[in-house]
Amino acid sequence: MSHEIPFLKPPDQAVFRDHMETKVAHWIRQWDGEEQLLAGIIGIPLSKASISHSGASTTPAAVRAAFKSFTTYSMEYDVDLQDLAVRDLGDIHMHVTDIAECHRRIEASLRALYNAQPDIIPIIFGGDHSTSCPSIQAFVSRHPSQRVGLLHFDAHHDVRNFEDGGVTNGTPFRGILESGAVQGDHIVQIGIRGFMNAKPYHDYVVSKGVHVYTSRDIRRIGMDEVLTQALQLVGKGTDVLYVSFDVDVIDQAYAPGCPAIGTGGVNPWDALDALYRLGTLPQVQGLDFVCIDPTVDVRNVTSRLAVQFMLSFLAGVAARSK
Amino acid sequence: MSHEIPFLKPPDQAVFRDHMETKVAHWIRQWDGEEQLLAGIIGIPLSKASISHSGASTTPAAVRAAFKSFTTYSMEYDVDLQDLAVRDLGDIHMHVTDIAECHRRIEASLRALYNAQPDIIPIIFGGDHSTSCPSIQAFVSRHPSQRVGLLHFDAHHDVRNFEDGGVTNGTPFRGILESGAVQGDHIVQIGIRGFMNAKPYHDYVVSKGVHVYTSRDIRRIGMDEVLTQALQLVGKGTDVLYVSFDVDVIDQAYAPGCPAIGTGGVNPWDALDALYRLGTLPQVQGLDFVCIDPTVDVRNVTSRLAVQFMLSFLAGVAARSK
Amino acid sequence: MSHEIPFLKPPDQAVFRDHMETKVAHWIRQWDGEEQLLAGIIGIPLSKASISHSGASTTPAAVRAAFKSFTTYSMEYDVDLQDLAVRDLGDIHMHVTDIAECHRRIEASLRALYNAQPDIIPIIFGGDHSTSCPSIQAFVSRHPSQRVGLLHFDAHHDVRNFEDGGVTNGTPFRGILESGAVQGDHIVQIGIRGFMNAKPYHDYVVSKGVHVYTSRDIRRIGMDEVLTQALQLVGKGTDVLYVSFDVDVIDQAYAPGCPAIGTGGVNPWDALDALYRLGTLPQVQGLDFVCIDPTVDVRNVTSRLAVQFMLSFLAGVAARSK
Amino acid sequence: MSHEIPFLKPPDQAVFRDHMETKVAHWIRQWDGEEQLLAGIIGIPLSKASISHSGASTTPAAVRAAFKSFTTYSMEYDVDLQDLAVRDLGDIHMHVTDIAECHRRIEASLRALYNAQPDIIPIIFGGDHSTSCPSIQAFVSRHPSQRVGLLHFDAHHDVRNFEDGGVTNGTPFRGILESGAVQGDHIVQIGIRGFMNAKPYHDYVVSKGVHVYTSRDIRRIGMDEVLTQALQLVGKGTDVLYVSFDVDVIDQAYAPGCPAIGTGGVNPWDALDALYRLGTLPQVQGLDFVCIDPTVDVRNVTSRLAVQFMLSFLAGVAARSK
Amino acid sequence: MSHEIPFLKPPDQAVFRDHMETKVAHWIRQWDGEEQLLAGIIGIPLSKASISHSGASTTPAAVRAAFKSFTTYSMEYDVDLQDLAVRDLGDIHMHVTDIAECHRRIEASLRALYNAQPDIIPIIFGGDHSTSCPSIQAFVSRHPSQRVGLLHFDAHHDVRNFEDGGVTNGTPFRGILESGAVQGDHIVQIGIRGFMNAKPYHDYVVSKGVHVYTSRDIRRIGMDEVLTQALQLVGKGTDVLYVSFDVDVIDQAYAPGCPAIGTGGVNPWDALDALYRLGTLPQVQGLDFVCIDPTVDVRNVTSRLAVQFMLSFLAGVAARSK
Amino acid sequence: MSHEIPFLKPPDQAVFRDHMETKVAHWIRQWDGEEQLLAGIIGIPLSKASISHSGASTTPAAVRAAFKSFTTYSMEYDVDLQDLAVRDLGDIHMHVTDIAECHRRIEASLRALYNAQPDIIPIIFGGDHSTSCPSIQAFVSRHPSQRVGLLHFDAHHDVRNFEDGGVTNGTPFRGILESGAVQGDHIVQIGIRGFMNAKPYHDYVVSKGVHVYTSRDIRRIGMDEVLTQALQLVGKGTDVLYVSFDVDVIDQAYAPGCPAIGTGGVNPWDALDALYRLGTLPQVQGLDFVCIDPTVDVRNVTSRLAVQFMLSFLAGVAARSK
Repeated sequence: MSHEIPFLKPPDQAVFRDHMETKVAHWIRQWDGEEQLLAGIIGIPLSKASISHSGASTTPAAVRAAFKSFTTYSMEYDVDLQDLAVRDLGDIHMHVTDIAECHRRIEASLRALYNAQPDIIPIIFGGDHSTSCPSIQAFVSRHPSQRVGLLHFDAHHDVRNFEDGGVTNGTPFRGILESGAVQGDHIVQIGIRGFMNAKPYHDYVVSKGVHVYTSRDIRRIGMDEVLTQALQLVGKGTDVLYVSFDVDVIDQAYAPGCPAIGTGGVNPWDALDALYRLGTLPQVQGLDFVCIDPTVDVRNVTSRLAVQFMLSFLAGVAARSK
Repeated sequence: MSHEIPFLKPPDQAVFRDHMETKVAHWIRQWDGEEQLLAGIIGIPLSKASISHSGASTTPAAVRAAFKSFTTYSMEYDVDLQDLAVRDLGDIHMHVTDIAECHRRIEASLRALYNAQPDIIPIIFGGDHSTSCPSIQAFVSRHPSQRVGLLHFDAHHDVRNFEDGGVTNGTPFRGILESGAVQGDHIVQIGIRGFMNAKPYHDYVVSKGVHVYTSRDIRRIGMDEVLTQALQLVGKGTDVLYVSFDVDVIDQAYAPGCPAIGTGGVNPWDALDALYRLGTLPQVQGLDFVCIDPTVDVRNVTSRLAVQFMLSFLAGVAARSK
Repeated sequence: MSHEIPFLKPPDQAVFRDHMETKVAHWIRQWDGEEQLLAGIIGIPLSKASISHSGASTTPAAVRAAFKSFTTYSMEYDVDLQDLAVRDLGDIHMHVTDIAECHRRIEASLRALYNAQPDIIPIIFGGDHSTSCPSIQAFVSRHPSQRVGLLHFDAHHDVRNFEDGGVTNGTPFRGILESGAVQGDHIVQIGIRGFMNAKPYHDYVVSKGVHVYTSRDIRRIGMDEVLTQALQLVGKGTDVLYVSFDVDVIDQAYAPGCPAIGTGGVNPWDALDALYRLGTLPQVQGLDFVCIDPTVDVRNVTSRLAVQFMLSFLAGVAARSK
Repeated sequence: MSHEIPFLKPPDQAVFRDHMETKVAHWIRQWDGEEQLLAGIIGIPLSKASISHSGASTTPAAVRAAFKSFTTYSMEYDVDLQDLAVRDLGDIHMHVTDIAECHRRIEASLRALYNAQPDIIPIIFGGDHSTSCPSIQAFVSRHPSQRVGLLHFDAHHDVRNFEDGGVTNGTPFRGILESGAVQGDHIVQIGIRGFMNAKPYHDYVVSKGVHVYTSRDIRRIGMDEVLTQALQLVGKGTDVLYVSFDVDVIDQAYAPGCPAIGTGGVNPWDALDALYRLGTLPQVQGLDFVCIDPTVDVRNVTSRLAVQFMLSFLAGVAARSK
Repeated sequence: MSHEIPFLKPPDQAVFRDHMETKVAHWIRQWDGEEQLLAGIIGIPLSKASISHSGASTTPAAVRAAFKSFTTYSMEYDVDLQDLAVRDLGDIHMHVTDIAECHRRIEASLRALYNAQPDIIPIIFGGDHSTSCPSIQAFVSRHPSQRVGLLHFDAHHDVRNFEDGGVTNGTPFRGILESGAVQGDHIVQIGIRGFMNAKPYHDYVVSKGVHVYTSRDIRRIGMDEVLTQALQLVGKGTDVLYVSFDVDVIDQAYAPGCPAIGTGGVNPWDALDALYRLGTLPQVQGLDFVCIDPTVDVRNVTSRLAVQFMLSFLAGVAARSK
Repeated sequence: MSHEIPFLKPPDQAVFRDHMETKVAHWIRQWDGEEQLLAGIIGIPLSKASISHSGASTTPAAVRAAFKSFTTYSMEYDVDLQDLAVRDLGDIHMHVTDIAECHRRIEASLRALYNAQPDIIPIIFGGDHSTSCPSIQAFVSRHPSQRVGLLHFDAHHDVRNFEDGGVTNGTPFRGILESGAVQGDHIVQIGIRGFMNAKPYHDYVVSKGVHVYTSRDIRRIGMDEVLTQALQLVGKGTDVLYVSFDVDVIDQAYAPGCPAIGTGGVNPWDALDALYRLGTLPQVQGLDFVCIDPTVDVRNVTSRLAVQFMLSFLAGVAARSK
């Protein structure tokens, strides 16, 4: 838009802007399709694979809206992120009614992305948790000669059977385990909660060698110690790590905008610290946030939380090269 | 964004689109700064001039969001608007704390616009009603050799004194009348309601020769007849008409998202018909919609209403040339 | 508060006030306990007699809050109410847990009021509809030598049996009929709706000689004709009239803040006109509005509606003496 | 539950009940699987076929909850429905992730139902509008020797192409027309609205011989006349009629709980009258209500509306045999 | 319902169910009136005894609805509850308008229950706190030869005078103390908060020998230590314990759905641990949760909290026999 | 109001009152304009200086409404405040459209107040944070011979440049620093958060000698230690202290009703303790709470929080004289 009419501007420019301040929304601009990236934001607007009614498909939009609320600078970590090559790659286009096709598209799109951008750290905003299975499949295929470990933050094991409902937000880690893409003992689940999982599924993950830390473990021995142990366990025999972060691992008071909420969960400070630390580790090469439902949230607090989690992680990434 | 990664698209493109359907959002795209336009959308995100707490500054964004909910075609008026040169000119950039400056900017920006686009029909989304005063001033100055008439749809006279609060959403027609920009008998107010105005202000407008039709008049003799009479009255001795439409003229059941709501107002069908008819009249050269507060609305119904009002008006405009 | 500190004022005065405008809140000030009144506002904050969960006890406060939103002047009725002696008498203090005592207090308080103010027109804001029974009992006792007629606007007959729940919001007119305070054929019920009443209760009122106009009757023959017939029926053999207005007689789209909502009801314009007309009749000596639940309302629209109903009625009252 | 503990009852019995009153919830009890029925309530909790995010899958539960708010008796139609053999048949069990399977189940289940209950009038509560296609297919197969006509109340034509999103809530009448199940000139669409449909789809239905009445037609010539004409058109050469009622045909002020809302729609009184009249016609043998989204509704008003629509229809049915 | 129509099921069965998972809703089914129970759920839908407007009467329904959100298994406590004989006994039927009668019914019903089920652990969901007085009276009478101790978690002392409002949610422990049912020094109040109680009531409980731990005490010395001291104090000379848990003892950020909310309260983790520990103690024979108001809650979080509290307690109970 | 009508009372008296209980609302009554006060409540209903849309102008009303929810007594601090001379001085009357004039009025009004009440501790409820600049200017001028120190609790530095938007809620401490009213090294900022401030502003405050404690510092070394260090730093060379408390320093889970919310903030217990301690210090002579927006709050929790903060502070003040 080029004209000489004073004060008339595109809507997103006709707003207050402090010229000394860089917001995340200014920094993480749309990818040009060519720039080699340190990290890239990818949205997966899918929630029809969810067992319960979920508006998780609106998460990418809600998260981008929250990019306007934060700056690139943290005196707490002494870092300004604005020169990092992090861009917004957009969303993976979902089919309206063919859910299996949606999952195929996720894997196909991410495989192509990893070919084009071999070093990119994907930061994926689901969508429901079913999106993590094809995402991790693509991630594994990206590292054919390396073994992949998974750090899975969640209140739930997410290893339901496939007979009762097909491939849903309750099955991603069943899918991963059954496919053999990742070995059970290369997976650590953190924040699993009592009275939110069936015993057969706990027994199943244990039988597969998956390591489990409950939310109560975190309260008792501290997130820092849990993470130290988890990294040790998952690090044995693996080369790269993928972090799948279901936001319902956080207590309902802090993350009311998840479909399956409850109390007794992790608090945000512990999560912020954990994600910073994971950011600092060069082997962590992928990250997703899933199962936020902005349509039932309160003042978008849960999407804001996810953005702050992402920023903590990227502050850690920024510290890698130091 | 040019790349070959399948399914990965900018967020606004990674959504369902029916290739046979044109939405208003597809049609009213951003102005390129050069195209000569039939009509142009202009947002004025100002509500700090409002006496009561108001989020009217968010109206332009809410209205644009509702552009996605409507198509360009009406079988009711047998018209498809998609070839009309109507574009989105953006918003007039408001000062954060200097309200008088905001009003100056509105007038300056619109004057410049009218110079650049002598034949454009401005369709302005406020903002509170204070924006109509500088808007009409600019409109009058655009037609130096012609006399301007005003059709003012509103529950309120909007001619408060300036001593008690300065230039507010309660004073635009006081401002117009005192400045002499438009003569009192070239103004018709339609939809004014009992128990929502002070007697001295009713007496004031009457003393100035302003013609008043109440909401009860509309119920009794019909909007069609009211409009016929109003056009006759306002048409005497004027060459061009400006329509200022305060959405609170509509009953609270249909327009709950206005700051000053109440019952006994106009129903939407009457307003849709009236705006269509005004659209058909070549002398109608400007239109504003004001005093929607999307922050207190229910499911954005009031912004949707305003979009449908605009589309009815443009359907009328489309019929002008026939 | 008397001091010389500039700009510092009691909270209700440190707000915008247009010195040329009189709001209802300025006009209907607190009664001094002595002034002889034309009409008086009385709140009855009781909803524990309601069968379903109801916040009707908060209606008096919600209605008073809405007094700030309206002025005293209507050009639609050519009247300015501000010189009428209408004051706010306050609320009748309810017992916390003894509901029968609450009903006794209502009757005792109103009897004493009618002794002190023999000519006052009470305008009572409930509270649930159980409050109308003691209110009407007091009203009848005020006119020992006169026969009282009732105009009852409601979606419901309100003549439930007493065995199943005692004296509730479902029983006021059973109470009136059984006590003999008012004869059945001196009662007209207006706006009664299908699928909202049990057949035995319809049969009961018919057997008592009560006249019934349904909401559908109003749509078919018009509120004006219904009211003409109703006044003729209720006027035979009666000297004074009391109007009990359950706001759920209005369609749910216009009065969403009632406990028992539904569609197919009366529209507000018809109600405004009816109340104006009732206001003009000297025999109408009492009025109550009941069964608003502000805690479930949308933007207080239902309380605003009730205030506008009251203002229409008072505009009628103002016309009596003309 | 059989015990002698006083006052202790199952939750649904430990509530107020007026022994003289029959609620719809008491009357329409669960079907025993054997009783031959006049009409049966069937829920289809599917909304994953919806283009936009929709909670229509929660409609059956919301509608049943509203059964508690209405009685079986209407003095407006002089009818008490409580002896009609209308029962609740339950919901059709949807697959979690296979939407095509969901549609197959709807058709299979209804075909079996029609075999078991050859004379039942199905009253189906969707779900999104995609459910109407298999529902109508089953209905057509039920009457192999008879020709079926459709009365389709909707703001939208619902004949989108299948390429862009598959079988969705936007395609049911495309599906019906393409399959040849019902001829175009045996279909009347009522309440279609401008600026809510694409021109190619209007042209498509016209080319197929479908008769279209817009919402504006209803305002202009009246619902009664529209229905008379529609019945004449659809009645030519057909033996039985199916009514598909998309609740978004109603104006947004009265039905805010639909996914695609807007103003300019039908008002509830017209719909109540139309459904009563359709109920009286012996050839009307099936009815569905679709596209309510209770998760975005206000005080469940839209589900209440649907229940009142159903009751009006059944009042008409009750009058058939008279 | 027995028929052969495929996929058609009662509404509560036509939903996703994982056949390997047992939800609390599947486990705690309706009592058959005969089975001897370990524990039983009893609802008391009363809130008309509340001083402030309260929807606590809807708690039993809200809590039962939340039973669907949790499973019977906790890996955190290594327990699966599904074989425990815990059933839903239903609600105690309240009178609509006679609050004293409501309290009599509570006591009568529970006395009869304790006769029929001498070993049952009642888990009572109020209702407002007034329900605890008759509940405790029944509990005391159940153990005629034993002395009863009370652990009372609450932000408030709940010992108001009876003169100002009668028997309300503010008086249960005044009622207990005055009746002599439980001695003051057999009562410990935990979580009492500053600026939420009047000094005379604090002095009163102290004068009666009641032991008080404030919310601040819990922060300072830890819930574990507070509970140890409390059990020691209350255990002296008592044989059985009753726990009355007013959910407003929890900080408003975690339990926003209580009538009287505020900050500075207990956090949920401390409460979960305390209830587990109380569950393990054989002397704890009764438990109630009161003063949740689901009508003002956010996403039902407060009812979910209460369910998780109950599950922690029952996990403790399960550990008793080990 | 003096009359003999039983039970009829002014609305605020016709409510339950426990005669043994003193609420904050009873204690902090309106100032008579003469009484010499220990502390005074002053409201500043201004939010038009806010960069983002804010309803902070409604805070004084929301806070006063919350005075009804708390008592004067805390057993946690062993104090009953009801005899302290703390009164409500009302609000400073804001201009409707001249924001600079609003700021002038704040300073003028407070200067006059300090003249009239040389020893008063002002407790100011904004309003947005722009109000603190004139407030502190007045405070500094009150102590001409003393040096003033500032304790500033906030997530933000609030030292934006003036070019981009003028004097806003983002600039108060820029204003203080540039004017020289308070030296940089006499200011401590507590609770500043990462990703919520621009680097140039952090550099600016550091360059001015301002001491900064981040929210993370508080988590790591404890609020108590932070406050000890802060008091030591700010106490060097100063005589009196002013505390400016932006409520967004609190984590969004506890204070959702602030315009700029986020996680990672201070928890309320730490704030309650800090404010008590500041209350005990004789050098603390002024306090403001700003940036609450009650229009977006959840159940008024954020205003309740602010009242509890005030009460903790006053409990500290009460302990000064001991």
